[in-house]
Amino acid sequence: MLIIFVFSQFVGLSQKEDSIQIRKIFNEALANGHSYNNLRSLCKDVGNRISGSEGAQKAVEWGNELMKNYDFDSVWLQPIMVPKWYRGATEKLAIITPINQEIEVLALGGSVGTNGNLEAPLIIIESLEKLEETPSEMVKGKIVLLNKGFDPTTINTFEAYGPCATQRFNGASAAAKKGAVACLVGSAASPTDDFPHTGSMRYEDGIEKIPTAAISTSKADLLEALSKGNQNIKLALNLTCKDFGMVPSYNVIGEIKGSENPENIIVVGGHLDSWDVGEGAHDDGAGVIHSIEVLRIYKELGIKPKNTVRCILFMNEENGNNGGKSYAEFAKKSGEKHIAAIESDRGGFVPRGFSFDAQNYHLMNARKWENLLKPYNIHIWEKGYGGVDIGPLKNDKIALIGFVPDPQRYFDFHHTEDDVFENVHKRELELGCASIASLIYLIDKYGLGEETP
Amino acid sequence: MLIIFVFSQFVGLSQKEDSIQIRKIFNEALANGHSYNNLRSLCKDVGNRISGSEGAQKAVEWGNELMKNYDFDSVWLQPIMVPKWYRGATEKLAIITPINQEIEVLALGGSVGTNGNLEAPLIIIESLEKLEETPSEMVKGKIVLLNKGFDPTTINTFEAYGPCATQRFNGASAAAKKGAVACLVGSAASPTDDFPHTGSMRYEDGIEKIPTAAISTSKADLLEALSKGNQNIKLALNLTCKDFGMVPSYNVIGEIKGSENPENIIVVGGHLDSWDVGEGAHDDGAGVIHSIEVLRIYKELGIKPKNTVRCILFMNEENGNNGGKSYAEFAKKSGEKHIAAIESDRGGFVPRGFSFDAQNYHLMNARKWENLLKPYNIHIWEKGYGGVDIGPLKNDKIALIGFVPDPQRYFDFHHTEDDVFENVHKRELELGCASIASLIYLIDKYGLGEETP
Repeated sequence: MLIIFVFSQFVGLSQKEDSIQIRKIFNEALANGHSYNNLRSLCKDVGNRISGSEGAQKAVEWGNELMKNYDFDSVWLQPIMVPKWYRGATEKLAIITPINQEIEVLALGGSVGTNGNLEAPLIIIESLEKLEETPSEMVKGKIVLLNKGFDPTTINTFEAYGPCATQRFNGASAAAKKGAVACLVGSAASPTDDFPHTGSMRYEDGIEKIPTAAISTSKADLLEALSKGNQNIKLALNLTCKDFGMVPSYNVIGEIKGSENPENIIVVGGHLDSWDVGEGAHDDGAGVIHSIEVLRIYKELGIKPKNTVRCILFMNEENGNNGGKSYAEFAKKSGEKHIAAIESDRGGFVPRGFSFDAQNYHLMNARKWENLLKPYNIHIWEKGYGGVDIGPLKNDKIALIGFVPDPQRYFDFHHTEDDVFENVHKRELELGCASIASLIYLIDKYGLGEETP
Repeated sequence: MLIIFVFSQFVGLSQKEDSIQIRKIFNEALANGHSYNNLRSLCKDVGNRISGSEGAQKAVEWGNELMKNYDFDSVWLQPIMVPKWYRGATEKLAIITPINQEIEVLALGGSVGTNGNLEAPLIIIESLEKLEETPSEMVKGKIVLLNKGFDPTTINTFEAYGPCATQRFNGASAAAKKGAVACLVGSAASPTDDFPHTGSMRYEDGIEKIPTAAISTSKADLLEALSKGNQNIKLALNLTCKDFGMVPSYNVIGEIKGSENPENIIVVGGHLDSWDVGEGAHDDGAGVIHSIEVLRIYKELGIKPKNTVRCILFMNEENGNNGGKSYAEFAKKSGEKHIAAIESDRGGFVPRGFSFDAQNYHLMNARKWENLLKPYNIHIWEKGYGGVDIGPLKNDKIALIGFVPDPQRYFDFHHTEDDVFENVHKRELELGCASIASLIYLIDKYGLGEETP
């Protein structure tokens, strides 16, 4: 009885200490935080930053300098190779029959150009599955519009995004197999608006490479409406995209060395590259800022982690994940032990919780902290996805953890001209920094346990 | 053992039925919902609607007609009396010394006018408490600016709002007691921007009524900065507000009659009046729309509640709560039994949960439904505030329940020109409708239990 009493006293005391420390972390993020101004700087001074671009190089220097200015224990660049793709100066789509109207269009990342003006009839097909069933003679010589939209009844918009992303990724080659001359996709987006959403795509080996681009949900609706009245819609597409092969770039890495076990690593990261439109504010400026702010808060509050906490600004998440893959190779060779990796790549919205791509015992241990984070409206502790950049680190021992902000607004902005600083909410961004910093504080202090044999 | 087995089978089956019904409610709100278009109509066709105004009368007709068109079992108007206050055509504030600059200003609801141009020196005082300590001779003949701002470290912005609202409500009389000629308040707002936030105030009996108005956080900062360099700031204030006494108006009420216990009432409501700026989109257009949509969803899905579900669009929450008080009087006299009242008056943001101004056993019983609503990211089931309009219904038996959307953005818009339709997110609004409809579905089916003796 005495032992139990003493133990629970200890637990009580320790919980109280932790709750005070977490309160300090949130106070620092909310009252003295640097996150909002740092995001402004990344968005306005650097701007968008697709892999291999001048913007990306500027972002590398920006991240390197910022973390050096914060005087983290080490800050370095990890050289990697990334694809360089350029959208080109001309990007045009117009309806030429039965009406004359220009349409906002964004080539998908990796698309070939049209080599001049490409005029062809339109065929609208609901989905990749329907395209599969459509006879080649109906598709041949045409521009295909694949128009699978978001399912509005899916509560988690990231689940609704899945099928739309597959359509975008595989559409061009699927259409080319049927003889199409180009492939458009309706935007992977929840709202109806005029913003086309770009994103990655892949050409299948041995299949003709046809140009491919996204149009907005409102213009997809327009084309659907026209097609109902008039079977003969003709479009003109002009894209001047070009591929420049592989070029050198960097992951940007900063860390606070562990005071007890410096060879044990806790990674926190987001990706530094973005698409070449807007400012990459939510995707993934927010994740970059969250990660840097975690280390800044530790330094400011004098939190000395037992294990090394390493902030990684990954390059090339959007079209290749060469940053994530290269870091995982480095990690394997380094002899360091990676305990956990936390990624923020779902926007800078209000925190809801964490999703664990990890062992059951990792999650069970983390759930012991539920009550400590409830006052901050962190409720989600579930199995789920970690993140693209940290994915290659996966093994039996590491916990890959995705930061989960509220998902309702993310696909309003994702991969568009509208993903700008002004659409990130100061307090929501700050709460994200503090939530991640608090989780890492607890992981560092208590670990995520060992598998019970 | 057999009994336990049969019982748990039954519970399992019933939970499954409930989860299917709740899924249908969310699907209807998200895929076929009327809420967003109804909010657009309230904001754009009616506009803002302060008690006693033409807008308020238009809103009464709008709500009455909409619910009649939905063919709810009964729709009626409850006559009430409300104050009529008019802001007037002129509303101006300018710094005249040491610089010349106009400043956005909004009279507080209920303020008297300035009776021409009122020029006076400014004194900035941090809070009501500091004003109390300040000698009259320092305040006499001056315009007081009370500038207590939001505490950014408070996670729930509604808690941060409390002290700011008190300053707004009591500032004028507190300043008048010290001889001030007018009282300005810094806005009750989390962001720094140019929107003054109006709101209610009260003159103490027997104290001189001095004009009182809100300025924006950015202009309060400007005045603070000027006051540091130069002790002599002079302002000119011109307000032409006028009070017109009490005038008739209405609560708008629609209901679906209970199929088993029509005399048992579950209220769902928001307030129809707004301040006389912006469009009252979040405050409380969202609550009005949430409440109407609950009944529409029930009708559409053929849900026949056992108890009467009554939607109340309360008039005059903002400056008097005469709608809430009048309805409570009616409820007392009616002989009906009010089981629960759910109010939505914290904006149309993404749902987080519910707060219970109720008995412990009410909350304990409601918490049994936690797992049914977790898939919809409803996590908060706590003791807390219900709502202004339903407050007068309070007794030992009724559960007053506040719908809790995420609080981070509410005070960006609250009582400003910026509280417009465009700042409400379609999916977030729809999720609110479904969350409230689901809770009421469960309360109607299972009740909130009886106190264990």
